[in-house]
Amino acid sequence: MHIDIITVLPGLLEGPFSHSILKRAEEKGLAKVEIHDLRDYGIGKQKTVDGYAFGGGAGMVMMIEPIANCIESLKKLRDYDEIIYMTPDGETFNQSTANALSLKKNLIILCGHYKGVDERVRQIFITKEISIGDFVLSGGELPAALVTDAIIRLLPGVLNDETSALTDSFQDGLLAPPVFTRPADYAGWKVPEVLLSGHAAKIESWRFDQSVRRTHERRPDLMNDGISKERDDNNIEQNDN
Amino acid sequence: MHIDIITVLPGLLEGPFSHSILKRAEEKGLAKVEIHDLRDYGIGKQKTVDGYAFGGGAGMVMMIEPIANCIESLKKLRDYDEIIYMTPDGETFNQSTANALSLKKNLIILCGHYKGVDERVRQIFITKEISIGDFVLSGGELPAALVTDAIIRLLPGVLNDETSALTDSFQDGLLAPPVFTRPADYAGWKVPEVLLSGHAAKIESWRFDQSVRRTHERRPDLMNDGISKERDDNNIEQNDN
Repeated sequence: MHIDIITVLPGLLEGPFSHSILKRAEEKGLAKVEIHDLRDYGIGKQKTVDGYAFGGGAGMVMMIEPIANCIESLKKLRDYDEIIYMTPDGETFNQSTANALSLKKNLIILCGHYKGVDERVRQIFITKEISIGDFVLSGGELPAALVTDAIIRLLPGVLNDETSALTDSFQDGLLAPPVFTRPADYAGWKVPEVLLSGHAAKIESWRFDQSVRRTHERRPDLMNDGISKERDDNNIEQNDN
Repeated sequence: MHIDIITVLPGLLEGPFSHSILKRAEEKGLAKVEIHDLRDYGIGKQKTVDGYAFGGGAGMVMMIEPIANCIESLKKLRDYDEIIYMTPDGETFNQSTANALSLKKNLIILCGHYKGVDERVRQIFITKEISIGDFVLSGGELPAALVTDAIIRLLPGVLNDETSALTDSFQDGLLAPPVFTRPADYAGWKVPEVLLSGHAAKIESWRFDQSVRRTHERRPDLMNDGISKERDDNNIEQNDN
C-alpha cells in the first residue's frame, strides 16, 4: 500500500510516521507513506499556497493551483484508488471505512488547513471526504495520521499477532472487555478471580459477558447495528457456562 | 492551561507539539504541554510498563504501578481538574467537550496503548474517558494530540484572529460554507459571482444558506440538536447587516 499525504505542515507528521507500527510497516515493506510539502508546489517566488477568501472573512483558504500541481504530478507516477480530503464536513470515519480503505492500493490524503481548501479542489479532484469527528482542529494533519494508522495496522503482517487486531473494540460490534495484568492485588484492588482460574471457557464467557455489558452501558447504539445481535444469537449458549 | 500527557511513545508526540498552534500557544505562555515517558516510571531494572493479560489472550496490558507512580508524582505538583484516559470505549469527543475542557486549568491525559490499561487504573485514577471515534488505532497518542489541539486552539489569544475559530464548523451547529480564493477562474471553473460582488449582506446571506444546505445534505443530525435553530432565531437580524 502506498499513501501520499499532502500537507502545509510536513514537520507535524514526522513524529507519527517515524514511530510505532507505521515505521514497522515500512520496514517490513508492507506500506509506504510519503509526506509531500505543498509549499514545494507553491505559486511564484514566495511559494504561496493560500489566499484570502473571496467575499471576505477571517482565515486563509488553500489555493487550487498548488494542490492541482501536486496531485497531477503524483498521478503520473501511479493510479490512485481514492483522493481523500480530511475535512470536518466529510463522512465520519469509522472502523468499516478503515477496513475498506485497507484493501486499497494507492491513496492520496490531502490535509485541510486554515479555513479549508478552495471548493473547486473538492469538485475536481477529491473522491472521498473524511471527518474524524464533530470537532474542529487546526488542520487535517493529525486526522490524516490517525486514518493512516487505523488503515495500516489492518494490513496482514503489520501487527505482531494478527489476532490482536481482531479482538479490538468495534471489529465485532462490541467494545473490548476489561483487561488486567500483574500484580493480582494492587493495594487491595484485586483482579477478578475467574481470570486467575485457568479455566479457558469460563474466561471466554466472562469476557464476552463483560463486552456485552460494557457495550450496553456505554454504547447501546452499537448493539443495534445487527452485528452484535447476530453474535449474541450464536454465542448465547456458551455464555451460560 | 497545563496539560500533562503520559505515554509509552513520547517520540510520536514530538512532531505534533513542536509545530502549528500548539507551539505558538506555548511561546505565548498560554498553554504548556508536557510529555511524560511512562518508562521513566517502569518497574525494575527493565523499566517494565506492560504485562500479559490475566486469563490469557493476545496483546499486552499497561500495568497499574508505573501509571500510579507517574500520576501520584504529578499530583504533588498541582491539582488536576480531570485525569483523562484515551480509549475507544470512552465517551465520543465532540466540540462541546472541547469547549468544556478549554475552560479547565490542569489536565492529565493518559494514552492507552497495546490492549489498554489495567482496569484498576480506570477505577482508581481516571475521571474522564474519551474516545475519538469508532475505530481502533495503535495507541492513544494521536488522539491525545488531537484533543490537545482542539482544546488549545480555543484558548483566547492562541489563534491570530479570534473570529476565525467562531466561524468554524460545529461551533454554531452548522457546517462551514464553501470557500474560494484566487484565481476567480481556474480552467473554466469559476467562483460564485456573489462572492465577487462586494455586497456584504448578500455574501453573508449566501454563506448562511450554503451552510444550512450543506448541513442538511451531509449532516441532518446536526440540524436536530436545536443549537442551529436557536442561533437562526437570535442572529437573523445581525446576519442582514
